[in-house]
Amino acid sequence: MNPTEEAALQRLYADFDAEHLLPLWTQVGDLMPAHPRPQARPHVWEWKRLYPLARRAGDLVPVGRGGERRAIALANPGLEGRPYATPTLWAAIQYLGPREVAPEHRHTQNAFRFVVEGEGVWTVVDGDPVAMRRGDFLLTPGWHFHGHHNTTDTPMAWIDGLDIPFVHYTDSSFFEFGPEQVTDTGTPSVSRSERLWAHPGLRPLSGLGARAHSPIAAYRWEHTDRALDEQLALEDEGHAATVEPGHAAVRYTNPTTGGDVMPTIRAEFHRLRPGTRTRTRREVGSSVYQVFDGDGVFTLDGVERRLTRGDLAVVPSWSTLTVQADSRFDLFRFSDTPIFEALHQFKEETE
Amino acid sequence: MNPTEEAALQRLYADFDAEHLLPLWTQVGDLMPAHPRPQARPHVWEWKRLYPLARRAGDLVPVGRGGERRAIALANPGLEGRPYATPTLWAAIQYLGPREVAPEHRHTQNAFRFVVEGEGVWTVVDGDPVAMRRGDFLLTPGWHFHGHHNTTDTPMAWIDGLDIPFVHYTDSSFFEFGPEQVTDTGTPSVSRSERLWAHPGLRPLSGLGARAHSPIAAYRWEHTDRALDEQLALEDEGHAATVEPGHAAVRYTNPTTGGDVMPTIRAEFHRLRPGTRTRTRREVGSSVYQVFDGDGVFTLDGVERRLTRGDLAVVPSWSTLTVQADSRFDLFRFSDTPIFEALHQFKEETE
Amino acid sequence: MNPTEEAALQRLYADFDAEHLLPLWTQVGDLMPAHPRPQARPHVWEWKRLYPLARRAGDLVPVGRGGERRAIALANPGLEGRPYATPTLWAAIQYLGPREVAPEHRHTQNAFRFVVEGEGVWTVVDGDPVAMRRGDFLLTPGWHFHGHHNTTDTPMAWIDGLDIPFVHYTDSSFFEFGPEQVTDTGTPSVSRSERLWAHPGLRPLSGLGARAHSPIAAYRWEHTDRALDEQLALEDEGHAATVEPGHAAVRYTNPTTGGDVMPTIRAEFHRLRPGTRTRTRREVGSSVYQVFDGDGVFTLDGVERRLTRGDLAVVPSWSTLTVQADSRFDLFRFSDTPIFEALHQFKEETE
Amino acid sequence: MNPTEEAALQRLYADFDAEHLLPLWTQVGDLMPAHPRPQARPHVWEWKRLYPLARRAGDLVPVGRGGERRAIALANPGLEGRPYATPTLWAAIQYLGPREVAPEHRHTQNAFRFVVEGEGVWTVVDGDPVAMRRGDFLLTPGWHFHGHHNTTDTPMAWIDGLDIPFVHYTDSSFFEFGPEQVTDTGTPSVSRSERLWAHPGLRPLSGLGARAHSPIAAYRWEHTDRALDEQLALEDEGHAATVEPGHAAVRYTNPTTGGDVMPTIRAEFHRLRPGTRTRTRREVGSSVYQVFDGDGVFTLDGVERRLTRGDLAVVPSWSTLTVQADSRFDLFRFSDTPIFEALHQFKEETE
Repeated sequence: MNPTEEAALQRLYADFDAEHLLPLWTQVGDLMPAHPRPQARPHVWEWKRLYPLARRAGDLVPVGRGGERRAIALANPGLEGRPYATPTLWAAIQYLGPREVAPEHRHTQNAFRFVVEGEGVWTVVDGDPVAMRRGDFLLTPGWHFHGHHNTTDTPMAWIDGLDIPFVHYTDSSFFEFGPEQVTDTGTPSVSRSERLWAHPGLRPLSGLGARAHSPIAAYRWEHTDRALDEQLALEDEGHAATVEPGHAAVRYTNPTTGGDVMPTIRAEFHRLRPGTRTRTRREVGSSVYQVFDGDGVFTLDGVERRLTRGDLAVVPSWSTLTVQADSRFDLFRFSDTPIFEALHQFKEETE
Repeated sequence: MNPTEEAALQRLYADFDAEHLLPLWTQVGDLMPAHPRPQARPHVWEWKRLYPLARRAGDLVPVGRGGERRAIALANPGLEGRPYATPTLWAAIQYLGPREVAPEHRHTQNAFRFVVEGEGVWTVVDGDPVAMRRGDFLLTPGWHFHGHHNTTDTPMAWIDGLDIPFVHYTDSSFFEFGPEQVTDTGTPSVSRSERLWAHPGLRPLSGLGARAHSPIAAYRWEHTDRALDEQLALEDEGHAATVEPGHAAVRYTNPTTGGDVMPTIRAEFHRLRPGTRTRTRREVGSSVYQVFDGDGVFTLDGVERRLTRGDLAVVPSWSTLTVQADSRFDLFRFSDTPIFEALHQFKEETE
Repeated sequence: MNPTEEAALQRLYADFDAEHLLPLWTQVGDLMPAHPRPQARPHVWEWKRLYPLARRAGDLVPVGRGGERRAIALANPGLEGRPYATPTLWAAIQYLGPREVAPEHRHTQNAFRFVVEGEGVWTVVDGDPVAMRRGDFLLTPGWHFHGHHNTTDTPMAWIDGLDIPFVHYTDSSFFEFGPEQVTDTGTPSVSRSERLWAHPGLRPLSGLGARAHSPIAAYRWEHTDRALDEQLALEDEGHAATVEPGHAAVRYTNPTTGGDVMPTIRAEFHRLRPGTRTRTRREVGSSVYQVFDGDGVFTLDGVERRLTRGDLAVVPSWSTLTVQADSRFDLFRFSDTPIFEALHQFKEETE
Repeated sequence: MNPTEEAALQRLYADFDAEHLLPLWTQVGDLMPAHPRPQARPHVWEWKRLYPLARRAGDLVPVGRGGERRAIALANPGLEGRPYATPTLWAAIQYLGPREVAPEHRHTQNAFRFVVEGEGVWTVVDGDPVAMRRGDFLLTPGWHFHGHHNTTDTPMAWIDGLDIPFVHYTDSSFFEFGPEQVTDTGTPSVSRSERLWAHPGLRPLSGLGARAHSPIAAYRWEHTDRALDEQLALEDEGHAATVEPGHAAVRYTNPTTGGDVMPTIRAEFHRLRPGTRTRTRREVGSSVYQVFDGDGVFTLDGVERRLTRGDLAVVPSWSTLTVQADSRFDLFRFSDTPIFEALHQFKEETE
């Protein structure tokens, strides 16, 4: 290109700019890569560093209307200082001090809690008090009012997962304040939603039809644990039950459809026998893992990271993951896979 | 019409006949009534009469290849001597003597068993031994091999439900013999299918996707009983949980879809508090009820019939039914409703 | 079995009978055959014999309230004198004399018309007048009011297809009389439903959502004919477009779902090049074919039958069919396949 | 908060930062607003300014491998210099000079073209040449190879719409180069896909089952135009056919499902009679309109903008829009609505 042409081209680009236009040809490779090239990076957060920071926040920062929640988000180092674990998923540690109350609100964002330790908090979802205990997976689907209150003299912390980044990016957030106090201060060991819905293969005739999200507010640890044990026992007896040798896994589901618990979030629990090494996988979409129990190694895009109880790992889209279990290794996982399945964009590769 | 015309018409009808033709205008009222006018009639079979006949069959008729099952079908008095409870549903009492074996076979007909009393038989479904006990609801979906064996010195009887009349009428039956003996003589208290699938809201990652029928081989009484108790307890606490006051009910479902257990058969369990009287209902499609426990009165098309434990009642299409509970009244029910829902022909009316 | 036992068995069977019970073991082979063994038989009706009988009925039998329609049904020789083409399907020739009116009514039975010759009748479906012309396929889905009127001095005859036998057997018929005259005597060449809906790949924003049946009242011959011609032309050009060599076919669909036009009835049009011989097929469920044009041979369960314009052939469940085209051979077909697909009972075999 | 506490809080925030953590409470209002507060802004691009810039690019910038397409994207003034019309949608003018070829490639991004003027280019989609003419809407669903070639001595420009921003944000892009030349240089007036699929209410038996995207490569102007005219004519005759008085509209659909043409993009065409004023609407998700013909006024979030032929307007999520037609006003529209419907996040309000 000669200097005259070059100058003409620069004038053209300036004129584009003035008209709010941008050419494809200068940026097609970045915009449309041959395979996903996420800005988000694989990263691990250690529970032993997270928890003390949450406790310090408990001492310094009140929880209440306005701030709404004492939640501290994993901020992916690749995502430019935004409080996002991945472009679609929010993951945070939430901390509630003795006798504290997180006020009620509701929003279109889908949310869940997962409890790696502690108890004594009830989350009240549309008026139904739901006890939180180690190993429980608890739902707050979009547009359900919810608040939390700690009925004990001991603080409690847990993990929150939401689709905040996705909803923010797609401009679909609605939010509404509820009462400052939770609307039911009862402390039943089991929620009403479970009493109605958490019976295997049964549904109440008073609640027919498919629903966008699961009506079960809490998936209890004893059921998850037993389901995983049975898969490994069946494998021992010579039957097909596990995902791969030594690797049991369940998916939390919406009993009204058999599908995912919420339209944008998938949640699973994986159990590896000591010594098990998973096949290497990668898939479209991002995941967050939390170690529930045990020790092992995550190999993320070829880099080994040792994880232990409470640690969190983020797996960006199309990053490879292999998990090696040094002890029995129990892993909670959530992901944005339902988005890609619904839009026919899902793809996976297994070694 | 004058005699000449009349004669011409008779000639025409004779000529129709010779060509395998029939006019609509002479029979439209019977063919296309203003509302369903079933040939099948409401009817009640008493367990105290059924069971002794089954026992006599046990003494006289061997079970084995050819006859296949010692099953005695309810033959609706309106259906001209066919062994059909209704035009779509088969209901039978099956009886297995001490140490007897009903050989394996499979067929496209969907089948289930419901146990009103006794235990000691295992039904083996595609190689998975499934214990049968009072209150259990057990599935044998279409084209699954299955046989039964009694491991005790006591006879056992139960109820079979199938879509034999529907499959026969629509000419869609396939049938295949399997081994003379059951393929797994184990006697576990819980089947492998339950160990994999009967955990509330959880599914194994090794078994994803929607299936035509439920993978749960047995729905156990303790879960059904607890789900019903919880509904009544929630009602006592002032929450919406029952179908109508004093009337709790669950539907057995396919956890891979949230829908019915099999494509042609719906199954439910209803519990009425003493003194409860249901609203009068009628619907397109037919049902069979069996009293699991308690006493009460069925009013069928305006006629009262007293029922007690084990008794069976057939409700034809569009017949009205009111149930009055004299004690706590526990009712198992199955129906052909999924056929009508799938084909957009379902309709119901409640008083 | 000794005489004492035999006598005991006879007493048992008599006692069964008294209690409205029937044993499975004496009839399992008939009830649950190894493959479908329909009572219905393959049969062919010749148009040259049908039409004159319809015309004689036109002279002798008035059309009007009560008789409702001058329709003469194909009565399958295997079905014991019932006016059924197959256990699920009704097929009839309907005849309307000059200036005659068939009064309005509606029913849950799904209905269509197919026109092999003639014109001059409008069928009025929920107030929308729909012209009937050779090659058109016209819908009257369940519970739509409809009547017909002949606006000319020439009689017209066509084929009706309905699910009367299925609805009758399953006791799901509702029927209601409408006005004696059609509610709109207009004679537009195209119905309003077509003006709204019959544009390829387009739907009106005023009519969103899935519907149980197609909103298109008439599928016109010119579209069907062109679609078939294009398939054969594409085949000539070396592209995949036909079902098998020389055999083009289209299915009439519900544009709101892409599925069948009505929940119980599938309709298709097949075109064979001269000399084409189809592979032999059999499938669960029954079909009726009408020759629209040309000559050929149907081999039904191994028996050859020559067919020409207007002739009708019935293919029972699991009967084998091969079609041989002597000229270009145009065939209209309808079947009950959607019932079996919806209920997961469909099965087919191709040679 | 006293200075000591303030200092402690700053230390805490610094420690958060070091651990890649961010608190919710300082940013909840921005992250989770009470209703969508998009960064993207309503904006209008004028065709009379766009087209000359595209022509200048045609003189200066070659089209070919690497740059791939001479496409100039609308860059929403609120979106910080990214080539995005909205956070999810890409809209560009593409320009192809006489005899030029845009090489073949494929990508997971879903794409379409809409032609506001000109002709002479064929887009070749998986080997099927598709003519482009004024008023046509043309599909290139994800992972279909496609290239374009201009067979004339006249340049041609059109509008491209894709889900590039959504796919980029969610890290789901796959891209592959194809041949430098188009694989079929034929210039048929109608594509093979249309010959197979663009017949109202008919589908080929060789192409059954639901598909993720429409098999119709081109929706032709004559069908769209006629469908809209018919709606207005039906309205004149007193029948329900339009969206609101004077406002006809069609949605382009996938004939295998009745749903949207592609999983992430909805496309519609709207026609307003002269003088019509639409009700004010807002909805979750973003849209792009292009004026196909006529003049009128868009009121976007209360600000009036006059538009004429070829002009493009962007409507961000939850922005209000009223359209006033000064002449007959023909509008092409595309949006990301299927994303929100699939994920149960859609919401709309009409004045």
